[in-house]
Amino acid sequence: MFARLEEIQQNEFIKAAIDRVGTGVVITDPEQEDNPMVYCNKGFQEMTGYEAEEILSRNCRFLQGEETNSVDVERIRNGLEKRETVHVELKNYRKDGSMFWNELHIFPVHIEQMDQVYFVGVQKDVTYRREQEELLGHYLSEVKRLSTPIVPIQDSISVLPLVGTFDDDRLHQMLETVSHHVKESKEDYLILDMSAVYSYDEAVHMGIYQMNQLLDLMGTKLVITGIKPTFAIQSAPYADFGELSLQTYATVKQALETLRHEINN
Amino acid sequence: MFARLEEIQQNEFIKAAIDRVGTGVVITDPEQEDNPMVYCNKGFQEMTGYEAEEILSRNCRFLQGEETNSVDVERIRNGLEKRETVHVELKNYRKDGSMFWNELHIFPVHIEQMDQVYFVGVQKDVTYRREQEELLGHYLSEVKRLSTPIVPIQDSISVLPLVGTFDDDRLHQMLETVSHHVKESKEDYLILDMSAVYSYDEAVHMGIYQMNQLLDLMGTKLVITGIKPTFAIQSAPYADFGELSLQTYATVKQALETLRHEINN
Repeated sequence: MFARLEEIQQNEFIKAAIDRVGTGVVITDPEQEDNPMVYCNKGFQEMTGYEAEEILSRNCRFLQGEETNSVDVERIRNGLEKRETVHVELKNYRKDGSMFWNELHIFPVHIEQMDQVYFVGVQKDVTYRREQEELLGHYLSEVKRLSTPIVPIQDSISVLPLVGTFDDDRLHQMLETVSHHVKESKEDYLILDMSAVYSYDEAVHMGIYQMNQLLDLMGTKLVITGIKPTFAIQSAPYADFGELSLQTYATVKQALETLRHEINN
Repeated sequence: MFARLEEIQQNEFIKAAIDRVGTGVVITDPEQEDNPMVYCNKGFQEMTGYEAEEILSRNCRFLQGEETNSVDVERIRNGLEKRETVHVELKNYRKDGSMFWNELHIFPVHIEQMDQVYFVGVQKDVTYRREQEELLGHYLSEVKRLSTPIVPIQDSISVLPLVGTFDDDRLHQMLETVSHHVKESKEDYLILDMSAVYSYDEAVHMGIYQMNQLLDLMGTKLVITGIKPTFAIQSAPYADFGELSLQTYATVKQALETLRHEINN
C-alpha cells in the first residue's frame, strides 16, 4: 500500500523492489497452451542459474529432475487444474544440474485489466533449513544413543555414569534402556554415578526417584555414588529424597568394595 | 523480465505478485524528513501485525524494542547515510509486542523517473531458523559432553564404554577428555569397552590406534573389551592393528578379574 503517490511512481517502486525480495517469482498464463511462464524476476534467475531469455514461454517443469517426488508434481498439477493455491516442498534442479529444495507457493490471481486468472509462483530455496533439520535429527538420535552408557562391572553389578543435562525425553530414554538391561542381565545392583553432575535440580531428582521405583519393581538395588556436599542443600526442596533410603558412597570404588563384601557374605 | 507483454499488463502482474512473495517489502524516501516509509506490501503487514494506515509516513524504527542490538541499529544508520547496501539480522517487535528475528536487507535504488535514490527494505522472519541453530548448538555440546563417560572402577583402573558413531570431532574430544582424566588420576589401565559398537570401520580403528598412542606416552595401558567375532574380518584392511599387541577380553568383568590379579602380584 502506498502513501499518496502517483500511479506511475508506484509502478517504478514495485518494479525496483520485486527483483530484490530474495525469493523467486514467476507468473504463468494458463490460457496459453502448456501454461507457459510469462514473467520471472531476477531472484528466480539467480536461484536457478537460468537467464530469463532461455526459460520465458516454457512450462516450469524444466526445474524437475531425477529425485523430484512425483506425488508433489501431481499435487501441483491438480492445484493448477482446480485453480487452487498450492504449497509443496520439492527437489528441483539448477541449470548446472545441482539440486536444491524448493518451497513452492502457487497462487491463482485474477488480473482485472485482462479479466483472466494467472498463476503467481513464489520459490524459496530452503536447502539450508532442510540440512539443519536433518542434522538436528542426527544429533538428537546420537544424544539418545549416548545417554545411557551402562557398564557391566562384574556379575550382578553395573555402573551407569550420569552425564549431560536432563529433560523428560532423556529420562524416558534412560529408563527404557535401564529396564531393558536389567531384565536381560538380572543385576543385583545398579550404581548410578553422579561424579559428572554439577548441580542437583528437580530434573535430576525426578530421574533418581523414577529410576529407584523402576529398579525396585525389578528386584535390583539402586546405589548412588559421586554425590557432592552441595547436593545436600540443593536437594532440600525435594522433600522425599531422604525417604528413599538409598545406599550412597563417595566413589564407585568405595561402593564396589562394600558391595563385593555384601555379595560374598 | 517479461515475455512480450504490454507495459500496463506488466504492472498489474507485479502488483499482484509483490503481495505474495512471502517477505516484507517497504520503500522509504530519504529526501523527506526522518526517511519515512512510502510503501509497504501485505507481507510486511502480516509479519509485523500493523495495518499500512498506521505506519505509512513513519520511520521504520517502530519495529525496534528492548532487546534490539544497538550495534545493528548503528550499522543501519551508517548504511543509510552512505547510501550503501545493508544486511543485518536483528530482534524486532510486532504490534502485539512479540519478538521476531528479522533478516533485513536494505538496497539504495535509483528511480529514474523521479531521478532520486530511495531505499528498498526486505524483511524476512528467520525466528524458526535461529531456533533450529540454537537447538543444534545445544545438542552438539550435549553430544560432546556425553561422548566420553569415563568410570573409575577401582584404584588404577577406569572403564570407557564406546557408544554412538565416530568422526574426527568426536575422536578429538574423546582423546582430550581421556588425556585429562589419565593425567589427573594416573591410571595403570584404561579399559575401552566396545560391547555397544556394532561394526568395526576405519573411524573406530583410528580411534583405538590414537588412543593407544596417547596412553602409551602417559604410561597407561589400553585394554580392549567387548570385541565381536566379526571384528576380526572387518578390521583386516587396517594392517597394523595386530602390531599394537593390545590386551583384549570378551567382557569388562573378565578383564577386571585378570587385571586385579596382575596388580596384586
